[in-house]
Amino acid sequence: MGALSEELHEFLDSHPVGVLATLASDGKPRQSLVYFAREGDRLLISTLTDRLKARDTRQSGWASLCVMGHEPPYPSATFSGPAEILTEHIGPPTAKIMQQITQTAEPPEPMTDAALAEAGRVVLVIHVDRVSAASYISAAGDASEGS
Amino acid sequence: MGALSEELHEFLDSHPVGVLATLASDGKPRQSLVYFAREGDRLLISTLTDRLKARDTRQSGWASLCVMGHEPPYPSATFSGPAEILTEHIGPPTAKIMQQITQTAEPPEPMTDAALAEAGRVVLVIHVDRVSAASYISAAGDASEGS
Repeated sequence: MGALSEELHEFLDSHPVGVLATLASDGKPRQSLVYFAREGDRLLISTLTDRLKARDTRQSGWASLCVMGHEPPYPSATFSGPAEILTEHIGPPTAKIMQQITQTAEPPEPMTDAALAEAGRVVLVIHVDRVSAASYISAAGDASEGS
Repeated sequence: MGALSEELHEFLDSHPVGVLATLASDGKPRQSLVYFAREGDRLLISTLTDRLKARDTRQSGWASLCVMGHEPPYPSATFSGPAEILTEHIGPPTAKIMQQITQTAEPPEPMTDAALAEAGRVVLVIHVDRVSAASYISAAGDASEGS
């Protein structure tokens, strides 16, 4: 799968939350609701370094995010790929995610990496290389109803 | 964890969709949006016998469902436990799930197991024994923010 389509970019940009799945150390999926921001084909989630989702990601190097619309017919798609925990240059992406949470017109002033480290805050990034279970998103189309 | 609280029952009953996670044969989580219905502490999903989510469930015997509200602050919780694929006595639960999809006052007339088998339709049931990543649901409370 190449780059995400413009339509999928728009879908992602218009929905601030999704359900993250990571692989827990017991081999089972672990799901939780998260706010996210998009940069190109990367999905960015702000979390704390000692959260289980961060530990899972360090261990497995993979994560997925299922994003959905909030009214029938609930358009949705699952975005997955290699994932990692970032601790450097995370001020601007963290500010962008905070803007998603607060839904303000502009992101807040970025914090420094040192200040974010002090707060235990990291960025979980998914490098999306697969879209699955897409439905009711016209560009995503027919191919992916079969999950 | 014992039975789900009345508040969690109400939360589940007032939200018709959730994000299902199953364990794929490659060892990774597989997520998709599904409609569901609740019976006691069991969550019921109608699917087709050859769908990957059904195959995953047969293989791993486990699934989880993350259910969320559709407005900020997006209340949510993840319900997980042993899961199986049912093919018998599935007329009434299938009708109940169809009612969730159509949002009609009454469920449709249940189909027979034979007719559902003909259509390839099965019921995926999660016997919930764990609630995690709950937030903004008062009864679920503080304990579970830590995912």
